[in-house]
Amino acid sequence: MATLKDVAAKSGITVTTVSRVLNNRGYISDETRKKVYAAMKELNYQPNEIARSLSKQKSTTIGIIVPHIDHPYFASLIRYLEIEAAKNGYKIILCNSQGKFEKEIDYLEMFQSYRVAGIILCSSSVDIGKFVSLHIPVVSIERPVDVGTTSVECDNYQGGVLAAKHLIEHGCKYLIHFSGIENEKMPADDRCRGFLDVCEKENVLHKEVECKADNYVSMEYHSLIERVLKDNPLVDGIFASSDLIAAQVIQVARKMKISIPEELKIVGFDDVNIASLTSPTITTIHQPIKEMAHEAIQCLIKCTGHSVVPSKIQLPVSLVKRETT
Amino acid sequence: MATLKDVAAKSGITVTTVSRVLNNRGYISDETRKKVYAAMKELNYQPNEIARSLSKQKSTTIGIIVPHIDHPYFASLIRYLEIEAAKNGYKIILCNSQGKFEKEIDYLEMFQSYRVAGIILCSSSVDIGKFVSLHIPVVSIERPVDVGTTSVECDNYQGGVLAAKHLIEHGCKYLIHFSGIENEKMPADDRCRGFLDVCEKENVLHKEVECKADNYVSMEYHSLIERVLKDNPLVDGIFASSDLIAAQVIQVARKMKISIPEELKIVGFDDVNIASLTSPTITTIHQPIKEMAHEAIQCLIKCTGHSVVPSKIQLPVSLVKRETT
Repeated sequence: MATLKDVAAKSGITVTTVSRVLNNRGYISDETRKKVYAAMKELNYQPNEIARSLSKQKSTTIGIIVPHIDHPYFASLIRYLEIEAAKNGYKIILCNSQGKFEKEIDYLEMFQSYRVAGIILCSSSVDIGKFVSLHIPVVSIERPVDVGTTSVECDNYQGGVLAAKHLIEHGCKYLIHFSGIENEKMPADDRCRGFLDVCEKENVLHKEVECKADNYVSMEYHSLIERVLKDNPLVDGIFASSDLIAAQVIQVARKMKISIPEELKIVGFDDVNIASLTSPTITTIHQPIKEMAHEAIQCLIKCTGHSVVPSKIQLPVSLVKRETT
Repeated sequence: MATLKDVAAKSGITVTTVSRVLNNRGYISDETRKKVYAAMKELNYQPNEIARSLSKQKSTTIGIIVPHIDHPYFASLIRYLEIEAAKNGYKIILCNSQGKFEKEIDYLEMFQSYRVAGIILCSSSVDIGKFVSLHIPVVSIERPVDVGTTSVECDNYQGGVLAAKHLIEHGCKYLIHFSGIENEKMPADDRCRGFLDVCEKENVLHKEVECKADNYVSMEYHSLIERVLKDNPLVDGIFASSDLIAAQVIQVARKMKISIPEELKIVGFDDVNIASLTSPTITTIHQPIKEMAHEAIQCLIKCTGHSVVPSKIQLPVSLVKRETT
């Protein structure tokens, strides 16, 4: 692989001057610049980014931790994070914690060793307070806020409100909400609060069903849904806290010969591609994933090199009407 | 952030010796080792991986380029690549080319600058011959083989054979195959060859419909499918070259009041999560994505530091029967 020295030898110019051309430092004549570029091109020279990072003690890499790379929500989020990072000249290192605490710790330490420019945490449970003291900006997306981090969320409460109102307006008399994971405090829990507040205010029969961590990790909800539908034959409206769950409600209802939307109406959450790919398509709460990714990356870039300022960025949601209601 | 010097000062041991402890070089007494570890722990010292990479002229990072991060197939593939890489102590840098030639070139040059240990290409169109001469191992997954690269594929031909046979065995008399992208040569084209060979041998009426690059990029096939179903009212069996297309065939058929599987049977390809989430669930050709990721990472690791040996690794497929047939 060609080095700076090779470029200097080829162009007949000193190493110092070649380095000044590369780093755009000081006055360089057009003629010299052209000679250096010609030699670089001929030798297929690539500046060594590892050396550059070292001299700057900082890379242009952003570390991202997600719990499930192939969950449709995270797949969509990663897509937009990568696009936003690339727009700003940053690369992403993607890590999958599989929801495991130890893996998250390992990855966070790795990011520290790599002198990443910042970290985006979409995973659950690590106390990231110590990273704050190391001046690595950390932005979390849809997870509980730690002291000293920035959190990007959608308006989960409003999402729950919109879902419940929509089902009630469409004549539902008995609503069930498949909510977040039991014993885990997440911003998504506010979806349930919004749902419950509307049901109570409108005096509509309702029930919350908490999912298990196992359901979340395996992305498998069928048996839970079947049990709930059998135990509650009068249910006519379901608000699922993800499109993934909503898709499985459709499947179970079909098996039980419950027609959608005639006998059972369903509202999902996220508005990821699965919501448009099921039959019938899923009415859902649109989470502005693209905009959340944009805010998270912008926020990281602003923080780079400075202490992290505690703050929260909340973006609005909206209801997308499709065929399940 | 603590440096090697700080650790040396804290432990009262020379920088050279601390470095030997870190790199596990030469004889070090247990007492010295303990002192160094204690100082590292107290100072929360993290070895600088950038500096390590520089001194080795190689990182433990693998660069991955995919055309669509949120396509269910690539989401699943990325998941397994990350798991396999992590098992072997490698990290991944994930880049999304959005199917754009210029972006692929940019990313490949970035990987070169970063001295990545290897590159996995799941994207389409770049001539990677020049990377071979730079001794960066390149493994491609399901893309046309370039000279000097290693290619990992599934047995696409056999997949086409299994799909056509299954539809014919279930009584279909007129088969349509939604195949790869027109004017692009891909390993997936062999699915069509397998399909055609069986139809011709069995003397069954059939037709191939090529998809446009636009369909692939937007993941939107509804209008194409609707036109094909209207133009071919006698079709009773469809082999779609992805589960994504198969899911949209279900939706269009539902809209046109064609019952599945009674009037129309469908076989997809990939066996990603969407195949289990639609109603009805999709009979599909299982692509061994996990095993393909394993082979690709193993192959890269074997190549590391050596010239890339041209070769091809092909893995078997199988039919998974679900509700669309």
